[in-house]
Amino acid sequence: MTAITSRDWALAKRPVGEPAESDFAMQTSTAGDPSDGQIQVRNSWMSVDPYMRGRMYDRESYVPPFQIGEVMQGGAVGTVTASANPDYQEGDLVLSMAGWREAWTMAPEMAMTQKLPSGTGLPDSAFIGIAGMPGLTAYAGILRVAELKDGDTVFVSGAAGAVGSAVVQIAKIKGCTVIGSAGGAEKCAFVKQLGADECVDYRAAGDYAGLLAALRTAAPKGIDVYFDNVGGDHLQAAIEMAKPMARMALCGAISQYNDTEPAPGPNNMIQLVGKQLQLRGFIVSTHVDMQAEFMADLAQWIPSGKLKFQETVMEGIEAAPAAFMGLFSGKNKGKMLVKLG
Amino acid sequence: MTAITSRDWALAKRPVGEPAESDFAMQTSTAGDPSDGQIQVRNSWMSVDPYMRGRMYDRESYVPPFQIGEVMQGGAVGTVTASANPDYQEGDLVLSMAGWREAWTMAPEMAMTQKLPSGTGLPDSAFIGIAGMPGLTAYAGILRVAELKDGDTVFVSGAAGAVGSAVVQIAKIKGCTVIGSAGGAEKCAFVKQLGADECVDYRAAGDYAGLLAALRTAAPKGIDVYFDNVGGDHLQAAIEMAKPMARMALCGAISQYNDTEPAPGPNNMIQLVGKQLQLRGFIVSTHVDMQAEFMADLAQWIPSGKLKFQETVMEGIEAAPAAFMGLFSGKNKGKMLVKLG
Repeated sequence: MTAITSRDWALAKRPVGEPAESDFAMQTSTAGDPSDGQIQVRNSWMSVDPYMRGRMYDRESYVPPFQIGEVMQGGAVGTVTASANPDYQEGDLVLSMAGWREAWTMAPEMAMTQKLPSGTGLPDSAFIGIAGMPGLTAYAGILRVAELKDGDTVFVSGAAGAVGSAVVQIAKIKGCTVIGSAGGAEKCAFVKQLGADECVDYRAAGDYAGLLAALRTAAPKGIDVYFDNVGGDHLQAAIEMAKPMARMALCGAISQYNDTEPAPGPNNMIQLVGKQLQLRGFIVSTHVDMQAEFMADLAQWIPSGKLKFQETVMEGIEAAPAAFMGLFSGKNKGKMLVKLG
Repeated sequence: MTAITSRDWALAKRPVGEPAESDFAMQTSTAGDPSDGQIQVRNSWMSVDPYMRGRMYDRESYVPPFQIGEVMQGGAVGTVTASANPDYQEGDLVLSMAGWREAWTMAPEMAMTQKLPSGTGLPDSAFIGIAGMPGLTAYAGILRVAELKDGDTVFVSGAAGAVGSAVVQIAKIKGCTVIGSAGGAEKCAFVKQLGADECVDYRAAGDYAGLLAALRTAAPKGIDVYFDNVGGDHLQAAIEMAKPMARMALCGAISQYNDTEPAPGPNNMIQLVGKQLQLRGFIVSTHVDMQAEFMADLAQWIPSGKLKFQETVMEGIEAAPAAFMGLFSGKNKGKMLVKLG
C-alpha cells in the first residue's frame, strides 16, 4: 500500500454569471493508506454536469450548496487501490460522489460509493453517463414524469446533451415522433443521427420568434410532450405549441443557470389553463426505484444498437473547469467527461 | 302560448383591456311560439363568469370566441313557458347556455339545455353556482387536479369568489389547513367566516413583496397545494412558498384577463425543477364524470352547514354588463348573479 498524491479542484469563489477558471483552485492532497473501514481509490473518469452550477450558489435547494475551499463533489468512476474494508477488494470498480480529484481515501459511505457490476459490456465511463445518473434521468423523465404515450409528438431541448440525447432515442424506441433542439448545424446533424425526425437549430433561429417559427415548422400540429433541459424561450415556445392535455417534464434550465437576475417566466402561462397542460419538475433521485427496469432495458437497447451513447472527453484533471464551463457554451455532444491519467 | 319580448345583450365590440358598458349592446328579440321540437323559456337567473372575458378575444381557445353582434352566451336558469318538445313540459325548470337574455325559443340542444331536478332543497340560482359549473370546478380542481391529501396546507387565491369560496370549504371539510387570499378586509373576513385559517389581503399587501411576506406569515412552513384563480404575482408567490412536491391546480388568472400585452410569467420557474412541483391547468368540462359524486357530497354538506354558498345578486337584465365588469373590480362575494324580473 502506498499513499497517492492527488490533484483536486476546490471551489475558490462563487461564480457571478458564467463560471470562470478563476472560480476554481487546484490543490494537492494525499490519499493515504486506508484504515478503519476506509478504501483508497484512484479515479479514472470524472463527471461534470449542469446541475453543479446550482450548487455553486449559496442557497437552500434539494442538495446542499458547495462550500468555498472544499473539493467539488460529483460522480466519478475509479478503482480500489487498497482496502481496509471487508466489502471492497483491490481492483474493484466503484462509482462515487468523491468528485473532482485524482484519488481519495475515505470510508465508502462518506463518498456515497457503490461497487459497479462487471461483465456488462459497458465501458467504465458509462456509469456516469448512459448507465448512470443522466441515463436514468432521461428514462424516468420521459417515461414516468412526462407519461409518454405511443404516437406522441415529443419536443426535447438540449437534445445533443447527455440527458437529451438519451431522451430522443428512448422516445423513438417507444414509437414517437421526436423533434430535438440543439445549438448549431453540427449538433443538429448529431441529433438527427440519433433518430430525431426533426431538429431545431436554436442558434440559427436567433431569437424567440425564430425559435417558435422553427418549432412550428417541425411540429405543425403541435406537441404532446416537452422534455425541458433549457428553460426560458424554449419553455415558452413549447407552451405555445402544446396540444391540449400536453405534458411537460422539467429537468433543467441551462439557459438560466448563470443568470444574475431572476428571468421572467413564459408570457403565455395562461395557456396552461385553456389547454389543460401539465408541467412537472423532477429530480432523478426521486425515481431510483426505476433503476432495475432501466438497466434491463439498457441491456436490450445498447447491444441491439437502439440506444447509442456519445461522449465528449477532455483529458486530465487540469481540464475539469474547462469541461464544466464547456457545458454552458455547448462544447459537448452527449456526455461531457474528464478522463484521468 | 304567447310570444315573449326579450331584452338581450350582444357583444358590440371586443374590449381592449378592462371591459366597458359600451362593449355591449342591448337589443330586443321575440321568443316566439315554439315549433318543431322547440321550447320557449323565460330566464330567471343569469350567470356572469370570469371565463367569459377570454371568449371576448378573437382567438382560438377551448371554447370558440363570442361573435360581434351575437347574444352573449352563458349559463342561465329558466322555466319552460311553452313546449313543442315531448321531453319538456310547461313549468319545467331548465339550465341552458342561452345566455344574457330574458327569454328564448329554440330547440333545447341548440341552447345546451338540461332539465333541473326538483326537490333538492336548493334555490334555483344554485344551479349556476354551487351546484353548477363553479361548484364542480372547485370540487374537481381541488380533489382531482390538485390531488388534495389529508393534512395539506392549501393556498387558494380568489378565495372570496364563486369557485374560491367553495375550494376553501371543501379543503376544510377534508381536514386541511387553508389560507385564502382576497382583496380587502371585508372579503378577508368573509373568507375566514367560511373557515379559512388565514386570509391574505392582497390589496393591503400592496405589491409582490408584500404579498409574499403575507403568505410567508400565514404559511411559515410553506404550502402543499395551490389553487389558482388569479395568476401573476399570486402564482409566483405560491411557487416561492411551495414545499417540495407541491401541486398546483390552475383554474384561472383573473389578474391577467384584461392585459393588453402578454404579461411575463413567474420569475422563479426554475424552482419547479428543484422542488419537483406539479402545475396542472384544467377546465371543468373535462371532469364532468365527477358530477354524480359531487352532487352526493353536496347533499350531505349543504344541509349540514359544512358548505355555505354566498351569492351577490344584481337585479334586472340591464345590470348584466355591470355585474360582469364587477368580477374584475371584485364587487362579488361568492357567485355573481343577475336576477331577471
